[in-house]
Amino acid sequence: MNVSTMTEADIPKIVEGNAASARGFRAAGIHCGVKREKPDLALVVSEVPASAAGVFTTNKVKAAPVRYTQRAVAGGRAQAVVVNSGNANACTGEPGLADSAEMAKLAAGALGLDVELVLVASTGVIGVPLPMEAIRSGIPRAARALSPDGTSAARAILTTDKFPKTAAVRLEIDGVEVTIGGMAKGAGMIHPNMATTLCFLTTDASVPPAVLRRALARAVADSFNAITVDGDTSTNDTVLLLANGRAGGPPITNGEALHRFTAALTLVAGELARMVVRDGEGATKLVEIAVEGAASELEARQAAMTVANSLLVKTALHGGEPNWGRILAALGRSGVEMREETTDVSFGELEIVRGGLGVTGVWDAAAAALEEKEIFVRIRLGVGNGAAKVWTSDLSEEYVRINGSYTS
Amino acid sequence: MNVSTMTEADIPKIVEGNAASARGFRAAGIHCGVKREKPDLALVVSEVPASAAGVFTTNKVKAAPVRYTQRAVAGGRAQAVVVNSGNANACTGEPGLADSAEMAKLAAGALGLDVELVLVASTGVIGVPLPMEAIRSGIPRAARALSPDGTSAARAILTTDKFPKTAAVRLEIDGVEVTIGGMAKGAGMIHPNMATTLCFLTTDASVPPAVLRRALARAVADSFNAITVDGDTSTNDTVLLLANGRAGGPPITNGEALHRFTAALTLVAGELARMVVRDGEGATKLVEIAVEGAASELEARQAAMTVANSLLVKTALHGGEPNWGRILAALGRSGVEMREETTDVSFGELEIVRGGLGVTGVWDAAAAALEEKEIFVRIRLGVGNGAAKVWTSDLSEEYVRINGSYTS
Repeated sequence: MNVSTMTEADIPKIVEGNAASARGFRAAGIHCGVKREKPDLALVVSEVPASAAGVFTTNKVKAAPVRYTQRAVAGGRAQAVVVNSGNANACTGEPGLADSAEMAKLAAGALGLDVELVLVASTGVIGVPLPMEAIRSGIPRAARALSPDGTSAARAILTTDKFPKTAAVRLEIDGVEVTIGGMAKGAGMIHPNMATTLCFLTTDASVPPAVLRRALARAVADSFNAITVDGDTSTNDTVLLLANGRAGGPPITNGEALHRFTAALTLVAGELARMVVRDGEGATKLVEIAVEGAASELEARQAAMTVANSLLVKTALHGGEPNWGRILAALGRSGVEMREETTDVSFGELEIVRGGLGVTGVWDAAAAALEEKEIFVRIRLGVGNGAAKVWTSDLSEEYVRINGSYTS
Repeated sequence: MNVSTMTEADIPKIVEGNAASARGFRAAGIHCGVKREKPDLALVVSEVPASAAGVFTTNKVKAAPVRYTQRAVAGGRAQAVVVNSGNANACTGEPGLADSAEMAKLAAGALGLDVELVLVASTGVIGVPLPMEAIRSGIPRAARALSPDGTSAARAILTTDKFPKTAAVRLEIDGVEVTIGGMAKGAGMIHPNMATTLCFLTTDASVPPAVLRRALARAVADSFNAITVDGDTSTNDTVLLLANGRAGGPPITNGEALHRFTAALTLVAGELARMVVRDGEGATKLVEIAVEGAASELEARQAAMTVANSLLVKTALHGGEPNWGRILAALGRSGVEMREETTDVSFGELEIVRGGLGVTGVWDAAAAALEEKEIFVRIRLGVGNGAAKVWTSDLSEEYVRINGSYTS
């Protein structure tokens, strides 16, 4: 848990850190037996009750822990999050809801907290009851394992991820040093897992629940809601944020302080979200798609997402194929206001389409741009001032192999 | 051109046949030099002016031939269709429009027709000017090659298709034998081609243009608009229908006659559309997704299309993986009214999800059902009476390999 302090307080930068980096937070990650061998149970706990906010999947099929935690976080207060991986507790009916409630109760008991202050999340197999004997024996052990080291928790929430995802920022707000840290897991889906995007953020800033909720909504819009790996939205997607105020200083409620806090929160969430894309199943490239000149921000996002989810664009990017026609065709069917004649497309600084027509003599340079591990696609629609940025991955044979096979 | 006559006139069945099977139609397919070797220029011509209707891509990026033909068919009359493959004449600006107009004019000259009676379609490379010298030398030759054999035309409209797609029906309407035939090409996209769905239907029925337009819209809704291979909509998608009345008999305008005509037209269009899915790049299975019990027909179609386009569902079907959680998750994010508790899913007759919960003991039988070349997914949402059926393919490594590679 190395958290290097920033040298220039005004420009927050990503530093090493995780969900236990902010003052007054501890975490633990252990193996309890939901999975055969790998860590599968995580706790994140604040030493005092904290403001809390959550953003959840919009899928109408919501897993039991999502339904439980949506209600639990509605009051805006929480002190602990308990997470299991290996089983999503989704499509499990009423017994599944009872299992989520019991998970919260077990954690509350082990930590000596009111059950109302415990939030729950799960990820893993769908349609299979949560193995509660493992959870029952595991939670007290996880509580005893709590420490200021958040790295084991970051490993315990993973399913098919290739690497743990943690990040933090440290910045000064109103003369007080504030830390925002977090951990996430990725969006791969492998049989028999239905994996999920989970993200747990903690901060020692003091932020009232209503303000925290708006800040988190803004940060998620520009991070986890601006990424796509396969266009599917899971039954379990959850982002939670706890703010325990241990940094001291006045509550952050508006003005420059709130602006700085939200920007830093967005930075951490964005870093974690891009890690999720990089770790997408079979992904070999991180692709940033920036749309400018759309009729509105909403239309810019819609256009960018349509391009980001186009199988033909994603396979072309994987193959290093500067097939700009596929980008134009995706824009054309995205439903947003656009005209070929005013549409420009660039890879980084290299313009490949001007006014809807291919720029001649750039094919080789465009192909070379696609050889990079990070690809920047810039689209100017020329019909308004709306702009948005989304991140996606390429689509490789590996993705199909992983997601189609019995045995993986 | 074997057209076997139906034994039971009341139940039209698909027979062999093509765009030249109906009385008074001739066709030709030749090589003119847009492609290196393969046939690339087709003509379909009626001996008399015909009622005409068209359905076109909804993509805002429309190829020149689409823009040209949308205007040309608006009057409801046509006598010939000229089609080239190998070049889409898309993203080619004003010169592209002039090329489409010249193609129509060349065909009109070679056939001795008013240019207003000629429709144009193109498919192939995007963003490259149409090689007009090849078109100019080819059209007169194609006109001289016209014959009652429609099979060479069916080959000349192909791009990356593995097989030509033709079908017909013959039925009695008001005591008159009517033939509806057609040809189509598929929806694969390979560098540097942006391929397209094209379908050309002809009939000797007598149908006024306004009625023909409605019948075609209905038939396309249940055929070409009910299939999806990769979710992308091309710049060139076109379905055209000519009805020359050479079968004799009174005009078909309403009642039982129109009902029978529309059903038979839908049958031919559906057969051709399913051939397009079967021939999808890297497709190994034809998957029918039927949704019942949706709040409306529109919602049923939306739910079915979301499942049909889900990468996770498509890769699971390819891998023979009865991962029903992916189907539920796709339904949940489709935006339609649904509740887990009332949702059932079957593979054919085998129920695998009842009331949102997995049926126990059916995994092996479900996996076996996915081994078939044709898979039937039945979804009952239990919230209303809306129903819809769509067809899709699985998603194989082959799809990614084809669409991602330079050299294919």
